[in-house]
Amino acid sequence: MSFIPVAPGCHFPIQNLPYGIFSTASNNTPRVGVAIGDQICDLSQVSSYFTGPLLGGERAATIFNESSLNSFMSLGRPAWSEARSTLQRLLSANEGALRDNPLRNTAFVPMSEAAMYLPANIGDYTDFYSSKEHATNVGTMFRGPENALMPNWLHLPVGYHGRASSVVVSGTPIRRPNGQTRPDPDKPPVFGPCKLMDIELEMAYFIGPGNSQGDPIPVDKVDDHLFGMVLMNDWSARDIQKWEYVPLGPFLAKNLGTSISPWVVTMDALKPFICENPVQDPVPFPYLRHSDPFSFDINLEVGLKTASMSTPTNICKSNFKYLYWTIKQQIAHHTITGCNLRPGDLIASGTISGKTPDSYGSMLELSWKGTKPIQLENGETRKFLQDGDEVVISGYCKAHDHLVGFGECTGTILPAHN
Amino acid sequence: MSFIPVAPGCHFPIQNLPYGIFSTASNNTPRVGVAIGDQICDLSQVSSYFTGPLLGGERAATIFNESSLNSFMSLGRPAWSEARSTLQRLLSANEGALRDNPLRNTAFVPMSEAAMYLPANIGDYTDFYSSKEHATNVGTMFRGPENALMPNWLHLPVGYHGRASSVVVSGTPIRRPNGQTRPDPDKPPVFGPCKLMDIELEMAYFIGPGNSQGDPIPVDKVDDHLFGMVLMNDWSARDIQKWEYVPLGPFLAKNLGTSISPWVVTMDALKPFICENPVQDPVPFPYLRHSDPFSFDINLEVGLKTASMSTPTNICKSNFKYLYWTIKQQIAHHTITGCNLRPGDLIASGTISGKTPDSYGSMLELSWKGTKPIQLENGETRKFLQDGDEVVISGYCKAHDHLVGFGECTGTILPAHN
Repeated sequence: MSFIPVAPGCHFPIQNLPYGIFSTASNNTPRVGVAIGDQICDLSQVSSYFTGPLLGGERAATIFNESSLNSFMSLGRPAWSEARSTLQRLLSANEGALRDNPLRNTAFVPMSEAAMYLPANIGDYTDFYSSKEHATNVGTMFRGPENALMPNWLHLPVGYHGRASSVVVSGTPIRRPNGQTRPDPDKPPVFGPCKLMDIELEMAYFIGPGNSQGDPIPVDKVDDHLFGMVLMNDWSARDIQKWEYVPLGPFLAKNLGTSISPWVVTMDALKPFICENPVQDPVPFPYLRHSDPFSFDINLEVGLKTASMSTPTNICKSNFKYLYWTIKQQIAHHTITGCNLRPGDLIASGTISGKTPDSYGSMLELSWKGTKPIQLENGETRKFLQDGDEVVISGYCKAHDHLVGFGECTGTILPAHN
Repeated sequence: MSFIPVAPGCHFPIQNLPYGIFSTASNNTPRVGVAIGDQICDLSQVSSYFTGPLLGGERAATIFNESSLNSFMSLGRPAWSEARSTLQRLLSANEGALRDNPLRNTAFVPMSEAAMYLPANIGDYTDFYSSKEHATNVGTMFRGPENALMPNWLHLPVGYHGRASSVVVSGTPIRRPNGQTRPDPDKPPVFGPCKLMDIELEMAYFIGPGNSQGDPIPVDKVDDHLFGMVLMNDWSARDIQKWEYVPLGPFLAKNLGTSISPWVVTMDALKPFICENPVQDPVPFPYLRHSDPFSFDINLEVGLKTASMSTPTNICKSNFKYLYWTIKQQIAHHTITGCNLRPGDLIASGTISGKTPDSYGSMLELSWKGTKPIQLENGETRKFLQDGDEVVISGYCKAHDHLVGFGECTGTILPAHN
């Protein structure tokens, strides 16, 4: 238990301790913090407590005064573990070092008063496509049931390169794009505002040390390179996507903006929630095989709040454990041809859909291509997003007496430019 | 004319003045230089000559001591023009300021003694697909002649996000990847070294100031954001590509490495070689229309040198002007949905093939999918690259009494890891 109070249902007890980049009105320099209860512990203020072999001396002071987590991510698991045990001791209710120190008055900042930033300078962003249910649903709608799941899908984790520059932190508004679409396949394309603006419920993870070009990360070494996870909303312009995506994949339909939650929940905090891997048939190639369980029981929810609503309606309940391919398999595959991953790179799961219609991770699937309007609590309906709609993604793991949560990933749709 | 001698046929006369990042044995700190003849003018040594309103004071000293061109790129065209006119005066045969100054002894470094680096920290790398001949050739081979050119191709410049981390400077060896392929479509996939290792002859350009997310760059403002161009070899594992690329596009087949030439030739240096745009039918949407000519007459050549050859055999002669979509159209399209471009972003043309078989920009096309072996001067043949093969891409514009060239972009294939 921490000396900072943690309300029941709070996502940020002492078992979590996610890292983020924040600033305050009184100090507008972005710096490293850790969420605890409804407070942020300003690590730039308490860096002198980090006295271990990897973060002692001036190292913690340097790293925790930076405006991104890239340096911290680059240090690797031993340094991350040292930081976590230091913080768990320092914030413990039984430990007086900070609790009874006047420094306590400046070391904590209410979350409600902080501005949050992207946790890292993202060098590259990759998006996988690892939910079998999502790939099957979308494939059915775009290409028909006979071509739904491509022949490669069960043999390798399909993925593609996304746009790093357009990843934004939760709360950033998203402008409806203009672009080319072809609503009638027998007529020429048209230009104008996107009409099928959608979400994708995803999770993403940040890379630690990474690898040199030409040297793949073996599947049993992936754990050394996994820093932590965030929630993601991969905003998608479906009508633009459908027209542009052959043969080189999604481009403008996705690079208008991708939102992530600000707090990076470490893999150490998520370990208690590891669960069995999905059964894979056919058995993957050896470079993709690992026998240790590495799926995670993370509850995911999507809320939608229109301009006339005061609280969001839940439109989806899903779970990270529904994914077919594991993170270890994704990274082993990503690097098998020699691609180098760097500290701060962001890799996403792909849309996370379950088997039941209420677990589908996109409005495309929830409304089945607009044929089944989604009912909201105030009587409104939605097939796709309208201007002013706010989307709220949340996620948490449930232990017997606490949650380890991710907070929220939100964004509101602005009208298209004229 | 410059006081540094420039041999006939040299790519780097005073009309060119491309920028690069270099270091030397006596000073291993990467810094900004300009190519002149067979020398590099070390701009960190001569920064005090930059006295104009935009680069004067300490600004040139700061920017030219950096290990990338990103800051210089971010300044925009007025600063680039100021730098160019300063350099053209400073290096002129008629100007004694540097010519007759003892500083001259340390301000110039022979190219042969310098190590070259990537010109910029590349935030994002995008690859277009703007040669109609290439798209038609590859489409024919991958999908058959009836589906060669997809319905969207003539309406928008098709492109996709590449992997920024794997872009390397000319001379970096490229390791043959291992990966999944399915040589027989009636049998399961297999795993092993790539058997169809290929090149793609491309050119790429670096972005200057860039735009804010949500605010497209109009086609008539693109010029403000174009810093300069380089040669590119987009190494491609064709057998891996064919198996993986549906439905999200190329991924591992390309992210094993992409080589660029080290000297960035500015748009100012390329202006004299602007030529007429290709005729476009259908007429593109207004956001893609510009009436000013913005194609470039740049001769491109690919040489292939096997381990037993002493000089490369030319296997392709192409030209940048063969491209269907212009750079202005590519950037207007890239940003139309709101994607933000940042200084140092790299955007590539796609493979540049012409109409004749000797102008095809990939071995896939030159050997027509391996059915027509490419004859080399020593009697060897190639369908695709073998271990030890070196590829040399060169490019130059021809004026009446000088060349404005790009130098070379080279790379040698290393054997796959066991």
